Amino acid sequence: MTKPLAALIALSLAAPAFANTPSPRPTLEQAADNALGGDVHAWDFVEGITTEVGQRQAGTEAEARGRAWAAEWLRRKGFQNIAIEPFMMSTWVPGEPGKAEIVSPFPQSFAIAPLGDTASTGPDGITAEVVMFKTVADLVAAPEGSLKGKIAFVSNTMTRTQDGSQYGFAGPTRWVASGIAASKGAVATVIKSVGTDSHRNPHTGGTDFPEGVKPTPAGALSNPDAANLERMFRRADGKPITMKLVLTPRFLGETESGNVVGEIVGRNPTLPPVLLACHLDSWWNGTGAIDDGAGCGIIAAAARNVSVVGQPLRTIRVLFAGAEEVGLFGSVAYSKAHIDEPIAVGLESDFGADRIWRFDSNFRTSNPALHKKIAAAVVRFGVSSGTDVAGGGADLNIVRDQKGALVDLQQDGTRYFDLHHTPDDTLDKIDPVQLRQNVAVWTQVVGILANEETAILTGTPVPAAPPIMGAK
Amino acid sequence: MTKPLAALIALSLAAPAFANTPSPRPTLEQAADNALGGDVHAWDFVEGITTEVGQRQAGTEAEARGRAWAAEWLRRKGFQNIAIEPFMMSTWVPGEPGKAEIVSPFPQSFAIAPLGDTASTGPDGITAEVVMFKTVADLVAAPEGSLKGKIAFVSNTMTRTQDGSQYGFAGPTRWVASGIAASKGAVATVIKSVGTDSHRNPHTGGTDFPEGVKPTPAGALSNPDAANLERMFRRADGKPITMKLVLTPRFLGETESGNVVGEIVGRNPTLPPVLLACHLDSWWNGTGAIDDGAGCGIIAAAARNVSVVGQPLRTIRVLFAGAEEVGLFGSVAYSKAHIDEPIAVGLESDFGADRIWRFDSNFRTSNPALHKKIAAAVVRFGVSSGTDVAGGGADLNIVRDQKGALVDLQQDGTRYFDLHHTPDDTLDKIDPVQLRQNVAVWTQVVGILANEETAILTGTPVPAAPPIMGAK
Repeated sequence: MTKPLAALIALSLAAPAFANTPSPRPTLEQAADNALGGDVHAWDFVEGITTEVGQRQAGTEAEARGRAWAAEWLRRKGFQNIAIEPFMMSTWVPGEPGKAEIVSPFPQSFAIAPLGDTASTGPDGITAEVVMFKTVADLVAAPEGSLKGKIAFVSNTMTRTQDGSQYGFAGPTRWVASGIAASKGAVATVIKSVGTDSHRNPHTGGTDFPEGVKPTPAGALSNPDAANLERMFRRADGKPITMKLVLTPRFLGETESGNVVGEIVGRNPTLPPVLLACHLDSWWNGTGAIDDGAGCGIIAAAARNVSVVGQPLRTIRVLFAGAEEVGLFGSVAYSKAHIDEPIAVGLESDFGADRIWRFDSNFRTSNPALHKKIAAAVVRFGVSSGTDVAGGGADLNIVRDQKGALVDLQQDGTRYFDLHHTPDDTLDKIDPVQLRQNVAVWTQVVGILANEETAILTGTPVPAAPPIMGAK
Repeated sequence: MTKPLAALIALSLAAPAFANTPSPRPTLEQAADNALGGDVHAWDFVEGITTEVGQRQAGTEAEARGRAWAAEWLRRKGFQNIAIEPFMMSTWVPGEPGKAEIVSPFPQSFAIAPLGDTASTGPDGITAEVVMFKTVADLVAAPEGSLKGKIAFVSNTMTRTQDGSQYGFAGPTRWVASGIAASKGAVATVIKSVGTDSHRNPHTGGTDFPEGVKPTPAGALSNPDAANLERMFRRADGKPITMKLVLTPRFLGETESGNVVGEIVGRNPTLPPVLLACHLDSWWNGTGAIDDGAGCGIIAAAARNVSVVGQPLRTIRVLFAGAEEVGLFGSVAYSKAHIDEPIAVGLESDFGADRIWRFDSNFRTSNPALHKKIAAAVVRFGVSSGTDVAGGGADLNIVRDQKGALVDLQQDGTRYFDLHHTPDDTLDKIDPVQLRQNVAVWTQVVGILANEETAILTGTPVPAAPPIMGAK
């Protein structure tokens, strides 16, 4: 049925004057507000990569599938100069699902995940008495050789913080405890997960062994299991607690990883570009949704939204780094390859997908006008201006190496360490409303930076860009 | 340092008059209020059994350790007539951790758990195309033979309800879908977990195959994984989705399980006793904290609290049933063995450890005075009186077989199906404050029932109890 004539007239009267002309380009503010109302691109990225690729352990074929997928996604979204920049890395894989069984006095099984770069127990496992330390400091205080033949258990607890600062406090349990225990003779180490949830999902992550200390097997128990083991010590009346551990990670040798880059080319491509970073790889046990599929979606969505406003003055380059989790291999490789190409400013999204609550830069004192301009522009999204000096994310080595400008858009990390490095890092954990706020804030900030005519770190007039390597 | 004299005088003046005489017995109301202020026994039970025993899959040596542990706990708490009553059962065990891998078009691994009484794929697994059904009704509507060689996937979603009523709506996905799919030729079935959380912890549980339908392999995907598989169907553009399943459960044949009983003997042990039930077994993947260690702790704590008030008129019997999860074997065995011993009233705790919010009985119309008395006594704990007819818990077959009196103390089940039959059924999920409210309400109600002089179902004077079997 067609509409009655009266209705058609009413409709035409109500329509805006430009209804039949092309939509005008939005202003930057409108583009940011539009993202708040309904992001399309960031969700599409993170839904797509978690569904069509899933986990992307660094150096594996899954990570390679992730690179191909991401490059194709950038192509579909209209990015230019898309490239995969490969590099070689020493690749560790987790092996079969780990087992941690209490043999006596209270037989039961715990959920465990091996830590990155640790050794295998072999398929038959190792069985030894467990010695408990409440903190890394207690472990450090243990006499040399006192752990000979034992499994060390470090039960340090992590609590939630909005800014993630407790990661620095609790992280050493994972980063250094197994190395310290090994140096005192331990045959293996188990830790309470460096995580703030209470689910049977262990938090994996990287660990380091000091020079000259042979890596041992080491794994993270889920928090409920670690709490159970603590209770066992209270209930065992001094009887030894014996655990059988089966962890079978292995090194594959040198394999290929890579970074994916793409650009929104600026009106003046000789000016140093704005670099937006995230990482593509994830630990094997999750799907890399909050860490860091969301981050890649946010930065790419912001770059694309800015392009809708009009071609920016500066090129916006996105860097989807490879192999971040296992030692920043992608960040190091990118800096090495591109160190002679100045970056105007670097920003990274790698702390989940919850609301941005604070803006920091490292040019608050050297370029106060720009800092204030950005601060004023993000107030309407509930973002305060901080006085911390921005340090940049893990994949911004190049900017730190160049001593360049950095902006940190601080996300609310209250939930982040519930999910970090666990099987639970899945799409359902992303709140679409908070994700949109991220995209809106990023759109606003990147739009300002990409159209900035002076040097961002100092506010001084921009000198002619040095020639790009190989462009002569 | 000793206290100055003035302080000692002040202390002695402040002390109550009976400070140096034995505490008088509390009233029932005081005993219940004391439990609210600080339960000792229920937490001790559930902490102990989850720490010292852990999972207690029916028919296994772990369940046997659970019986021995529970009987010893009852002994330490002063229960009498403690007995383990063994029975034989057909025992199913889950085998190695299950695997569910999408082979194409989007290779990745899902978290899966086999369902009870299902078959093995063999260690090499089976690989087949997946066919998705949104509901069991859609599966029922599939033509006969249409699933030949396929894996059926039923993606019905469960939502939270306070009274747990959605279990009846969502449960058939687990209870009957694999049987229906098998009858239409499916080689295996995977379901979205019958559970309300969003963690990578699949919800296992029992399943039934109709007479004449050979059991197939079947498993529950975690909810995030099931959601991922649904997204794959939307993104696959009609391309077939192929899954490799490895599930290796097996039947051990007939093994021993058993019930554990204990009593607070009443002043008149010829009167029918009050029967308090729970179950000792758990699924293998969790530790049986909310299902149902907490329940056993609550009922035993209540019985003991009532005994502190003074010897009750009627005997209070606790029944820690075996093998509930896998088919109510303990409930059936108990009824068969004791059917000729009348029970005055039965109550069960088997719905977690969250707050009791409603009281139901099946004697509201036949014995309104008692129903009202109980209702009035629990109001101060925030418990309303319901009009539903109490049906009793799973382990109260004997009371239903005797057409006896039943009381249901309805717990808040809002969180229950987040945890039900998952690895996450661990001690940390129990809120000690809500657990205490359970013990307080149970103490109050059991204290009333165990001192009731008339028949509980009808309020009529109690006839002489028939002779107890074998007591002549």
